[in-house]
Amino acid sequence: MRESVRGQVDPFIVMDVMQAAARAEAAGRHIIHMEVGQPGTPAPQGARTALARALSQPLGYTVALGLPRLRQGIAGLYRRWYGIDLDPARVVVTPGSSGAFILAFSALFDAGERVAMGLPGYPSYRQILRAMSLEPVGIATRPEDRYQPRPQDLPKAQGLILASPGNPSGTVLRLDELRALTQAAAERNMAVISDEIYHGLSYGDRCHSALEVTDDVFVINSFSKYFSMTGWRVGWMVVPETHLRTVERLAQNMFICPPHASQVAALAALDCMDEADENLAVYAENRRLMLDGLPKAGFTRIAPPEGAFYIYADVSDLTDNSLQLAADILDKAGVAVTPGLDFDPDRGARTLRFSYARATEDIAEGLRRLAAFMESR
Amino acid sequence: MRESVRGQVDPFIVMDVMQAAARAEAAGRHIIHMEVGQPGTPAPQGARTALARALSQPLGYTVALGLPRLRQGIAGLYRRWYGIDLDPARVVVTPGSSGAFILAFSALFDAGERVAMGLPGYPSYRQILRAMSLEPVGIATRPEDRYQPRPQDLPKAQGLILASPGNPSGTVLRLDELRALTQAAAERNMAVISDEIYHGLSYGDRCHSALEVTDDVFVINSFSKYFSMTGWRVGWMVVPETHLRTVERLAQNMFICPPHASQVAALAALDCMDEADENLAVYAENRRLMLDGLPKAGFTRIAPPEGAFYIYADVSDLTDNSLQLAADILDKAGVAVTPGLDFDPDRGARTLRFSYARATEDIAEGLRRLAAFMESR
Repeated sequence: MRESVRGQVDPFIVMDVMQAAARAEAAGRHIIHMEVGQPGTPAPQGARTALARALSQPLGYTVALGLPRLRQGIAGLYRRWYGIDLDPARVVVTPGSSGAFILAFSALFDAGERVAMGLPGYPSYRQILRAMSLEPVGIATRPEDRYQPRPQDLPKAQGLILASPGNPSGTVLRLDELRALTQAAAERNMAVISDEIYHGLSYGDRCHSALEVTDDVFVINSFSKYFSMTGWRVGWMVVPETHLRTVERLAQNMFICPPHASQVAALAALDCMDEADENLAVYAENRRLMLDGLPKAGFTRIAPPEGAFYIYADVSDLTDNSLQLAADILDKAGVAVTPGLDFDPDRGARTLRFSYARATEDIAEGLRRLAAFMESR
Repeated sequence: MRESVRGQVDPFIVMDVMQAAARAEAAGRHIIHMEVGQPGTPAPQGARTALARALSQPLGYTVALGLPRLRQGIAGLYRRWYGIDLDPARVVVTPGSSGAFILAFSALFDAGERVAMGLPGYPSYRQILRAMSLEPVGIATRPEDRYQPRPQDLPKAQGLILASPGNPSGTVLRLDELRALTQAAAERNMAVISDEIYHGLSYGDRCHSALEVTDDVFVINSFSKYFSMTGWRVGWMVVPETHLRTVERLAQNMFICPPHASQVAALAALDCMDEADENLAVYAENRRLMLDGLPKAGFTRIAPPEGAFYIYADVSDLTDNSLQLAADILDKAGVAVTPGLDFDPDRGARTLRFSYARATEDIAEGLRRLAAFMESR
């Protein structure tokens, strides 16, 4: 049968590592998981209780933009987190941030158009764009810019994806940087999509939303990370008022609605920020251990991880084959880490991503193993 | 901010009716809902119990293709329903059938290509295609062909969507018709996508899957209808072995995974076919009432509704403005019905769709009201 060209997106290279880790575990080995991009904790207790209570109801389709109370609750987060007065009508509940990207790209760009993003970056940006007949344009960012693009770096393109905190870097855009980047994009008539999925997970100053500097932006977020609800597939997008009807029609047709049960859980999760902050305290302690232990082990060139739960390390002094290095670390130290190739196809052969989303005792044990591995190298 | 051309998909005309119905209810009127395309029943009890039990687990991301046990269980359905031995590896769990269409269209077609489907048909086929820069090509089907396309009707296109039972028609393709259509499509190098979302809901012979006549087909189905799980957003797609890796990579990037909680519920739902069959018995009784009452009321030109829970009526003897007729029926009879325009932009001005998915007493009352309305006309 026929196949499309656009369907031929790149495989995830990390899958090889994950499968090798699973094989090692199946063979009885104990593996520390520093490759996974998700919390080990469940959804907040209040979210699960609310869903358990709702299970006697039909939970049929909701309206396409999501439960009105959930949209209102999300708008409330913008007051709480950023001091912004956001009209709940501009909040679109989506099937994960993934669904939000599909909606944003459909609403903004026609086939063949170009969308820029910093490299290293979340690989699915590029693959979703390709699957939608759009052309991803990577901006090679520099460690001295905390792996974030600068206004003068913007290429000729119709769109720009910003990510703060970034994945894999964990670095954060300052308010003046957000302002300069969105202004530069506006001057070039580029639509800006700001991925803020790791907001709430920061370890110094709070993260700034692009909505603090402009309303002319698509802001994407999710319950996956701060609220620890990855598998629930419920995210959201704030869109300019001008684009609401377009996004609503696309959502009606492309998704019908986000999963109802997940929306019920997400609504209750908004009242569980104490539990989310307890998880954050664990990440903060993990991060402290990582920032202490990684350099001691020999991973010295790391981006300042101001948010999310990742540390991106330049290992060019150790290898020019991060895939092999990751395989060695898994094989000899029993620690699964992510080679940088998924995030930066060119330069990722000389980088690794370490995730510290899991339990603190695992992080401590993983760091001991990494130190011993580097010692014996 | 910029907008795409492809994002400008058509609105759902039925939304006007639904909003008018909601306004009437808010004003204290009692409305019978024959416009909705979903069961009024919840997910099977066993599905809800299984999820309640699983709520203590993290429910993080699953693998992109879905829980292995769920894929296995779905493959088992093909043995049970069609006597087909299906490799579970070919089963892809998706975020609703909506997600399956997005994956299928990405994997099969490049921007600008044409995909054909019978009209009247499910409106989102056309809108999802447009949002993905593809060109929907309607085939005007005939009542005497039970509103299904014939091999000689196939236009020049790269793809063909079949739907049996059809929405809005409820009509079913026979095995020899499926064979002739898939063969004709293969001869023209058209990829076939068979929408079988209403399978399990049939009132005479069982429905036939396109997989009974060829493996060279994308078959799409869902837990929404027969298993009464619309809002859960969990469907599936059976793909040719040759396309599995492509679809897996697309699913990893575009959706990460289907909602985990919904997958847990769906797995348990597979063991709840008694409850699903009880719902089916209600639809069967509703259908009997409709087939008796609609012609008596004056809606005589109806397609033979062999499956799903819809009846499509040609009302060209009554009006050439189905939107106005639907508005009148709502206003005067307090019954919400769907004008055909969403399903067939040209001829739908002279058709209505009646849904009989709800409780039998509502159907009986709706028919009384419709008869009185037609009497007084």
